[in-house]
This record gives sequence, structure tokens and C-alpha cells, in this order.
Amino acid sequence: MMPSSQEAPSGLAGHAGDRLCAAIDRVSSPTCVGLDPVLEKLPADLGAVDGSDESVINAMESFSLGILDAIAGHVGVVKFQSACYERHGAAGVALLGRLVKAAGERDLASILDAKRGDIGISASHYAATGRLMGSDWMTINGWLGEDGISPFLQDGAGAFVLVRTSNPSSAQLQSLQLKDGRSVAEGMADLVTELGARHVGERGYSTLGAVVGATHPEELAGFRDRMPGVFMLLPGYGAQGGTAESLSPAFDANGMGAIVTASRSVIYAFHDQAGDWKTSVTTAAIEFSEAIGTVAGFRS
Amino acid sequence: MMPSSQEAPSGLAGHAGDRLCAAIDRVSSPTCVGLDPVLEKLPADLGAVDGSDESVINAMESFSLGILDAIAGHVGVVKFQSACYERHGAAGVALLGRLVKAAGERDLASILDAKRGDIGISASHYAATGRLMGSDWMTINGWLGEDGISPFLQDGAGAFVLVRTSNPSSAQLQSLQLKDGRSVAEGMADLVTELGARHVGERGYSTLGAVVGATHPEELAGFRDRMPGVFMLLPGYGAQGGTAESLSPAFDANGMGAIVTASRSVIYAFHDQAGDWKTSVTTAAIEFSEAIGTVAGFRS
Repeated sequence: MMPSSQEAPSGLAGHAGDRLCAAIDRVSSPTCVGLDPVLEKLPADLGAVDGSDESVINAMESFSLGILDAIAGHVGVVKFQSACYERHGAAGVALLGRLVKAAGERDLASILDAKRGDIGISASHYAATGRLMGSDWMTINGWLGEDGISPFLQDGAGAFVLVRTSNPSSAQLQSLQLKDGRSVAEGMADLVTELGARHVGERGYSTLGAVVGATHPEELAGFRDRMPGVFMLLPGYGAQGGTAESLSPAFDANGMGAIVTASRSVIYAFHDQAGDWKTSVTTAAIEFSEAIGTVAGFRS
Repeated sequence: MMPSSQEAPSGLAGHAGDRLCAAIDRVSSPTCVGLDPVLEKLPADLGAVDGSDESVINAMESFSLGILDAIAGHVGVVKFQSACYERHGAAGVALLGRLVKAAGERDLASILDAKRGDIGISASHYAATGRLMGSDWMTINGWLGEDGISPFLQDGAGAFVLVRTSNPSSAQLQSLQLKDGRSVAEGMADLVTELGARHVGERGYSTLGAVVGATHPEELAGFRDRMPGVFMLLPGYGAQGGTAESLSPAFDANGMGAIVTASRSVIYAFHDQAGDWKTSVTTAAIEFSEAIGTVAGFRS
């Protein structure tokens, strides 16, 4: 069961931007592992899933906890793909709550990748759901403007707005050209920067961040300049393409300002390998962390 | 408990656009009631909520079922604000599943107002969640383009894309001007029309619809012309402003093509009235249905 509305979220005092910088400092690498498990890809040694709801939830939980154990200490942040858990109904939502808590116990900051976007009381409800789970950050959709963004920033919580996404059809809307010469995505970036400026923490970054696909490396320098004080979440590293070196324009002089997310290339690293699956995941997480840590200037 | 992934969704054979037209025909009015309950506004006679998770869920369930009973036969469609239920964690999600089923048992078509927006397997997961609940339609966010829209249209399911929302800050992004003279919202409308054309049913409407706020009546005629075959969901009637007459440009010659949503003005109609709360809600639903049914040409 998730925490009730009477309990305070644990371990989330302060400013999400400062917490994110601290999580990066702990492992000397601005890296995040995306946890988006689907049943068909889980390791065989989790036991045969008999198709019952209970066996499905058990397999998802064993795998997810195994990933958290395998990556802890090597990357600082985990991003939970909410859909993969919500897909399994109420029991999946309860599992997600347990996993966010488990991440915190392993010193992993967490991002709830829920891509929520609503206004007023509904937005507050979604924000409260994330906070009650104990999640540091949530991904949100900025289509509704400030009404759909500000509710997610209460009490120091963080939100990454989808600015320029990594998927193939992202250009259909995001790359349309505005009359003033900006792209629609740049229009969103400017809105994020403006709203985020009210929420900057001690480390110089806001609790309002931006999702910018690692699949568009040629645009990273432009977005970095355009959004001072805005942390960029860069998904699409590894399986979706994108090299470590191509991401260097995303970081500031201190290696901060961006966090790179790898999902399938880490959590399914065991697929073409013999031996214990968690060992394969740990090895992949270390390689990922090392590559990005070097590009960002934490390591040489 | 929600249906497991082994059960087929009940009562959702065929095409969501045709089902929506049939639901409108049943009550001779293109109207929808938005169910977005918050605890503080529930009727006193639901019993004192003692603050426990169980008492909260019980109060939400009694109220929601009472609303479904009060409006059934007067409006054809109910829109569940997902956030209001997700807010209560796993138990809230389970309740939402029960309510969608209960709506179907009362011959109410249902829209899951979840404003989801994701791609690939994640989008399929969200779509599956709605289908498993037995919901006819879901609201979605089109920011990601086709990748984030098409997965919601499988097996005849319907989705309303947020095109021009009713909230005050909607203009910040949606009303930016494109180089080609369109607004960003019009750019989204054109994308919806293009993608929707592949999914038109027997009644001439697609399973891909568009959310256009009833708070922008001056834009309705333009969007109606711009999006042939696209059903418009018009929230914001009543509490958020907007009169019945001002919405007439949204309908086609048969009174189809748009469905008007009222939320607070119906579900909280009892707030300033004496007597049984459900009677007040029924009266408000009848007045709403009559006003919109007349404007759309179903009644004279």
C-alpha cells in the first residue's frame, strides 16, 4: 500500500535541484537509469510467470529491485516509467510506490516518468501522488502553460517539462517554425526558463527542468544557452542512439546542468550475455557512468 | 480489483466514434458530465470521513456512484478526471476501474480524462489501462506527435487530443503564431485531422477527437471547419463560463461533432440548495442536457 495522505514524504526536504546535484556528486557522474520493464524481457531465472496477476507483480518487483541493487552506487538517479507499472492496475501502482521508496533507501534520487499534464486541482493531485510516493522529480507536459506547470513545483518538488523529445515523430509539432524564428520547442524552452527562474536553488539550478532528447545532439548547445539554470534530462542514450561525446555541449563548466538517461542498454544488458544477470547490469551501469562522467568532466 | 490482463474489456466492440454518436442519440443531447470529486466538496450525508484511507475511498465511491445514478438517462457520457482518483493511490485506481464499469452498466459512455502522453510501449500501456477499465475514450496530449497518438487508437478505441484548452494560461504556448499564419493550436488541429482521417467510422466521425475549450466560443467555428470528421470535446461549460448558445458553431447539421462537458455546475449543484443532493444533481443534469440538446438541434 502507498503512504496515506496523512504521512509526510520521507527524505524529500529541501530543493529538488540541489538534491539532484547532490545525487550526481555522490557518484561523480550525471547519469540516470531508466527503469521501464516489460514482462517478455525479464531474466528467465525470476521464475516462470504463470500468468496470474500476483506472479506478474512478483516478477516485476524482483526485477526492479534487482536493477536498483545493481546500479546503486554507480549512477545517482533512477527514472521509473510510470506506464510500465500503471499497466498492471492498482497492484502496479502500489508496486511503484514501494520501488520509489526502495530507491531512496539505496541513495538513488528518483524521477517519476509519468508525463502528466493537467491544471489546477488535477495537477495538484498528480503532484501529490508523486510526492507521496517520495519521488524527487516528475516529467510533465507543458502544453497547458503555466497552469499545468506550477502545481508540480510546490514544496521544493521538481518537474521536467517535455521540450524536445527523442521520438521519431517529435518534429511534427515541436519543430514547426514560429513567426519570430523560434521553433515551437524553443518556445516551450523559453517558457520553462521564464517560469523556472523563480525556483533556483543554492546550486544555481531550478526545480523546473526540461526533457531534451539525446537523439538531437546538434541541438544541445542551443538549448543549453537558451535555458540557463534549467537542468536538462537527456533520454535516448544507448538503445535509441546518441554517443557520450556528442552530449558534452549539454553540461556546464562544473559538469552539471544535464543528466543522461540510459534505459534498455543498461537494464537489459544481460540479454546477449552469459552469467548472472545483475552482474551484467552492474557492468553496463559502470561503463555508462564512466563514459558520461568523463564527458561531463568528473573523471579523466 | 481491476480486470486482469487475461479478461477482455466488456462492451467495447466496434468503433468509439460510432459508440459516442449512439450515446448521444440515446439521450438526444451531446452532453457529458465531468466527474472530478474532491473530498471537501462531498455531501455531508455521506457520513463523516474519519481520515482513514478506507473512509476516503468509501466516500468517493458513494458520491461517484450517486452521480452516475443521478445523471444516467439524462446525459449520455461521463468523463472521469483520473487525477482525482489516482490521488488516492492504488485503492483510488481500483475504484476508478469499478466506476468505469458502473458507468457502462448505466448505459453511459465513458471518457478517461487522464491527459496521457507517451510513446511506443509506454503509450500502449496507458491505452491498455484504459481499455482494461472498459473506458471508451481517453484524453491525451499530442506534443509527441503521431508516436504519442496512434497507440491510443488500437482496436477501435478513441482518444481526444488536447488542441485548445480552456485554462487561462493555455495561450502561452497554444496561441503562439506560426510562420505560415496558423496558431500552434491550429497546427495541432491539423495533425489531429490528418491522423484521424484513417479512423473514420460509419457515422462519419473518427476515433481521434480534439479537446477545444468551451471558454473560447469565438474559435469554435474555425476549429469545426478545420477538423472535418473530428469530434470536439468542449470542457469548461458552466462553472468555467461559456453559454449554450455560444457553442452552436461546434455542431454539424445533425447535432453531432461535438460534446459539451459540464463538471462542477452539475456534480456540485446541491451546494446552495436544500433537499436531497442527488435530486439537485439530476435537476442540473436535465437543465444542462436540455439547453445543449436545443442548441445542437435535437430538441426545439
